Amino acid sequence: MAGSVDERIHAICVRARAAARALVPRPRADKDAALRAVARELRARKAAILAANAADMAAARERGTSGAMLDRLMLDEARVEAMARGAEEIAELPDPVGETISETVRPNGLRVARVRVPLGVIAIVYEARPNVTVDAGALALKAGNAVVLRGGSEALRSNQALVEALAVSLEASALPRDAVQLVPFTEREGIRALVQQTELVDLAIPRGGEALIRFVTEHARVPVVQHYKGVCHVYLDEGADLETSKRIVSNAKLQRPGVCNAAECLLVARADAKRLLPPIADVLVTGGCELRGTPDVCTLVPAAKPAQDDDWGREYLDKILAVKIVGGLDEALEHVARYGSQHTEAIVTPNAEHAARWLREVDAACVVVNASTRFHDGGELGLGAEMGIATSRLHWRGPMGLESLTTMKWVVVGEGQTRG
Amino acid sequence: MAGSVDERIHAICVRARAAARALVPRPRADKDAALRAVARELRARKAAILAANAADMAAARERGTSGAMLDRLMLDEARVEAMARGAEEIAELPDPVGETISETVRPNGLRVARVRVPLGVIAIVYEARPNVTVDAGALALKAGNAVVLRGGSEALRSNQALVEALAVSLEASALPRDAVQLVPFTEREGIRALVQQTELVDLAIPRGGEALIRFVTEHARVPVVQHYKGVCHVYLDEGADLETSKRIVSNAKLQRPGVCNAAECLLVARADAKRLLPPIADVLVTGGCELRGTPDVCTLVPAAKPAQDDDWGREYLDKILAVKIVGGLDEALEHVARYGSQHTEAIVTPNAEHAARWLREVDAACVVVNASTRFHDGGELGLGAEMGIATSRLHWRGPMGLESLTTMKWVVVGEGQTRG
Repeated sequence: MAGSVDERIHAICVRARAAARALVPRPRADKDAALRAVARELRARKAAILAANAADMAAARERGTSGAMLDRLMLDEARVEAMARGAEEIAELPDPVGETISETVRPNGLRVARVRVPLGVIAIVYEARPNVTVDAGALALKAGNAVVLRGGSEALRSNQALVEALAVSLEASALPRDAVQLVPFTEREGIRALVQQTELVDLAIPRGGEALIRFVTEHARVPVVQHYKGVCHVYLDEGADLETSKRIVSNAKLQRPGVCNAAECLLVARADAKRLLPPIADVLVTGGCELRGTPDVCTLVPAAKPAQDDDWGREYLDKILAVKIVGGLDEALEHVARYGSQHTEAIVTPNAEHAARWLREVDAACVVVNASTRFHDGGELGLGAEMGIATSRLHWRGPMGLESLTTMKWVVVGEGQTRG
Repeated sequence: MAGSVDERIHAICVRARAAARALVPRPRADKDAALRAVARELRARKAAILAANAADMAAARERGTSGAMLDRLMLDEARVEAMARGAEEIAELPDPVGETISETVRPNGLRVARVRVPLGVIAIVYEARPNVTVDAGALALKAGNAVVLRGGSEALRSNQALVEALAVSLEASALPRDAVQLVPFTEREGIRALVQQTELVDLAIPRGGEALIRFVTEHARVPVVQHYKGVCHVYLDEGADLETSKRIVSNAKLQRPGVCNAAECLLVARADAKRLLPPIADVLVTGGCELRGTPDVCTLVPAAKPAQDDDWGREYLDKILAVKIVGGLDEALEHVARYGSQHTEAIVTPNAEHAARWLREVDAACVVVNASTRFHDGGELGLGAEMGIATSRLHWRGPMGLESLTTMKWVVVGEGQTRG
């Protein structure tokens, strides 16, 4: 491929824009047929995909890549099958395009509606996991968008094999092949060029570590929806039921400690700390969790280590939990406002007034009463497939399902009306 | 005020963030009381406001400022009264904060809702018109936001007098005075610093000429909702009724030629050009409109001048209309896709299928069938007050009423549920 990085990225985006426009008039059936073809192609090409991935894995091992990173990069039969099933599930979801958001008739007889339409061209910038290629591509396509995928260099061969399956499926359904394109080179300036195509790219979604997200946000001239970290709290209010608290805290911390909606900090109301903390600490410590507490926590829970200043607001993504005793709801709200990352914040309380204040006053993408933080997830909240959890405030917040990948237009139908 | 421009802007935004947080728990009644107080204060302080404006006007005249600019800067009794009434009307609008967008109960009994919440801190960067200070401040406040206003240097005295009226009204209703702040200096770096406060500012809205919007977009690190130009078309389809076409075209072009939803280009289906164009051209020319047409248009309409290449896609904001004869709907769609600015696009047609294709295939904030482009306006579409027309695709499109100044959160209420 000739030309500078800028020119090559520009050419890809020009093709994506044309594909996005060609997708607009296509009915749901065509998109769903392409998604089912994706599932078939993935299964048919499994050997080729796994061979490409094996080459990526071998190169990564040679570079001395670590275990967690290798696991993210790795594909096997089950993971390919999961991608295929994912595409089929997306085909089953209702089509958001054309949905009426609101509808009125004005006093002059004009019929006014807001209708969902595709966003256009979405750039997705991500790291190791090759499944993002299919998951994000399929979701964007269902919402009528063209997508430009810029995966990590370590997964380039895997991603090329996967995008080939997507492209063949699009062509088989007479949809534009360029609706899903992979940037076929991995120079870092490619990301910069991609997120500065203001005339051609409508949205950039960075998915990966904080460094990647900051790089995209810093250089983007197109709108960005971020997926920042989750520093999620569980606050046990005065009067919280012990069994409920135990269940929720250990689920929030231990069920899957490495994800963004896992709890990182436990706050307990002073009035009930003695009743609640020791038995809950027992369960956590038995589950292999390290506790880091304020001095009063360490007194009640001898197994806890003293917390340092930087334990507050920290995302461990591991079996570690910061623990603090607070005066009550007001102090818990203060702590969450100061240290939370506006991701997921839960209260356990029998008090309806406190629950209502939590829901209203905590500023987060998801606020939870008497349930685990782990429910902040597209599938659990009823969206079906999702593309991560947005921590931005603009456009969308929380799990990014199909609706989040659309915009709207105003539709005005008259019978010759003019403005007086 | 001490410190560098950056430090002073940062300090303003820190206060705005605190004010935004303090607004969250306040009920509708408090906000509406403050808005009614704004109306009272504006009326009570009319003399002081007009004196401040007279000083701005005198300084502008001394600098040799032109007539149109002076008119935008000018306040008189009627304009102050219009701002006061505007604040009262916003007080009457329903409160968007707390509205439920969607609500479901999951199979596990979790109650899941999406609820509208304030955006947070909104920076508004604008030029001459001092009424934006009150209109935008009042609208942002009603949606529960704090606002940082950065008006033009030419209006600084007027804006200070108006913001003083707003601040006094907030205090009288025990709302945070810092919920509406004016940047009290007008160095250009102030804009740059303001739109780069990623931790403190949630949204920047530039309002004014294209140069200002491009400057903000170029330098912003916070999300921006743009208000770009309107290159709006009216397409007269085969079989369009002459009287309806005449009425719509002359309303779209002549009712208020200087605004973004006025038509700038007329497309006519070849099959009916002879029937439609001459009588419509008569009405337009009689109304003082200059026509610039393709050669076939000039043959049918001797009064038309030949159009140049740069007449297509041009925003005249004046009594000038580009006119082109097209083969039919497909060519009209092509032309609009190539030259339109995705603002407002209208078709006049008796053909339901063509109308449906127009509504679906034209990519614009507002698509119109058999009515004037001039209806693309918050008041006309039923939103009440608005803060301009967004031509962005993300977050919001079209007239920015109260809903566009909010975001949402997910609210999850359980009875001890955990994730399996």
